[in-house]
Amino acid sequence: MKVKLAENYGFCFGVKRAIKIAENSPGSITFGPLIHNPLEIKRLKNEYKVDVCENIAELSSDKKVVVRTHGITKSDILKLQAENFEIVDATCPFVTKPQQICERMSADGYDIVIFGDINHPEVKGVMSYAVGSVFVVLSPDELLDAKLGDRVAVVSQTTKKESDFVKIVEFLISQKREVRVFNTICNATWDNQSSARELSGNVDIMLVIGGKNSSNTKQLFDICKSGCKDSYLVESVDDLDTDWFKDKGICGITAGASTPDWIISKIVEKVREI
Amino acid sequence: MKVKLAENYGFCFGVKRAIKIAENSPGSITFGPLIHNPLEIKRLKNEYKVDVCENIAELSSDKKVVVRTHGITKSDILKLQAENFEIVDATCPFVTKPQQICERMSADGYDIVIFGDINHPEVKGVMSYAVGSVFVVLSPDELLDAKLGDRVAVVSQTTKKESDFVKIVEFLISQKREVRVFNTICNATWDNQSSARELSGNVDIMLVIGGKNSSNTKQLFDICKSGCKDSYLVESVDDLDTDWFKDKGICGITAGASTPDWIISKIVEKVREI
Repeated sequence: MKVKLAENYGFCFGVKRAIKIAENSPGSITFGPLIHNPLEIKRLKNEYKVDVCENIAELSSDKKVVVRTHGITKSDILKLQAENFEIVDATCPFVTKPQQICERMSADGYDIVIFGDINHPEVKGVMSYAVGSVFVVLSPDELLDAKLGDRVAVVSQTTKKESDFVKIVEFLISQKREVRVFNTICNATWDNQSSARELSGNVDIMLVIGGKNSSNTKQLFDICKSGCKDSYLVESVDDLDTDWFKDKGICGITAGASTPDWIISKIVEKVREI
Repeated sequence: MKVKLAENYGFCFGVKRAIKIAENSPGSITFGPLIHNPLEIKRLKNEYKVDVCENIAELSSDKKVVVRTHGITKSDILKLQAENFEIVDATCPFVTKPQQICERMSADGYDIVIFGDINHPEVKGVMSYAVGSVFVVLSPDELLDAKLGDRVAVVSQTTKKESDFVKIVEFLISQKREVRVFNTICNATWDNQSSARELSGNVDIMLVIGGKNSSNTKQLFDICKSGCKDSYLVESVDDLDTDWFKDKGICGITAGASTPDWIISKIVEKVREI
């Protein structure tokens, strides 16, 4: 099978940085999974003894705590500081930005709208910085009953699709006198998405490699499905099904921002052999 | 001919206010036409001796100067003040708003984008308040080569279509980190436009009454043409052509924000007789 890789795919700046931080902190513990890729988390545990803990109460005070790339809530940071943990912050700088915007804008009297998934750790972190009203939505409909003031600031989860973000903004503009729009979708997301869009329209089958709990991977999968109906989301080589490739000429491959190269290489190799 | 009037049409708050101001200043002179309706300007001259002057040099210092509803440039206001003219400001408060936003935002370091017609007096006035870069555009294409900074504030000419404003905003969001959107399209414009849209889809012929140099009237005409292919822009009863009404059942009528009721009544009467 012939393989074509997307022009931009895989690890983004924030993920690379977070992994470097974790590798430089052997024996540490990350508060929540460092990135949304179970296999890479497993590698960090095996090779660097970097463990994962989901609950502050269970953290042992003799270990460095690494803040995950998606960031954590303001109250959790304050708790860690209050308990004198040694903290290493691996929050992606592109995530720190909406946190700061959220804090500053709500202090300035703006109501905050976050375009994102309320259950995603990044969004939980960002919204925790608001001191006033904050609304987390995935579509304009969810704002119909929102009691928003006349001045609204909007940010986006870093890994979302811009065209969906615009829909939220469009709705707000029609309703509010001032809408302060901060496009916090990160460049890596944008680059990976536009490359995936282009490639998926020119192949017979498309693989999106990434964690099934990864927001940006799911967005890529969504985009690829529009370009190529035979698109599949795979986490590892074990997810591949040779039946998918029957009578197909070219297989396009992209990968989420939290997918390490070693996983991608294995899959590319395997597909080439089919 | 059966006539149906749009739910909202004609004189807006700013125009009513400006006419009241002019009527209360008999013998005054307006700097540029008070509103974009030649017949109403003529009436103010005949009934209240309110004259029009286009050039500060030609103003006689013994007369009150009425600032037109579209506003004038900051430098013209300063000149009038410097020459001690008695000034009566009939600028629509909905126009004062984008002037103030433009001044404040550019002082705060934002580049300004105005969605509007660079030759319209309102836009000339608004842009004159910018202390930094300002770009006046009617479509996103015009921004392709604009050297805009990373923080942009956007306002709209008060009489423009919201859907076109959104296109400018959408383009800017994709390019810039912060876009501060001030929807300065006035409510009257919005109400008149949405009523025109609704009515034009349910009639056989549609008349839009207003000055041919009136921005909001032209927008209404544009909207009506989409709803009803037999739409006509008329300034007075003299523009009517009975041929238009042949084999038509219902005639819809709307009017721009600067169209006085007495002109509308004459036309309605005439159409009913056809």
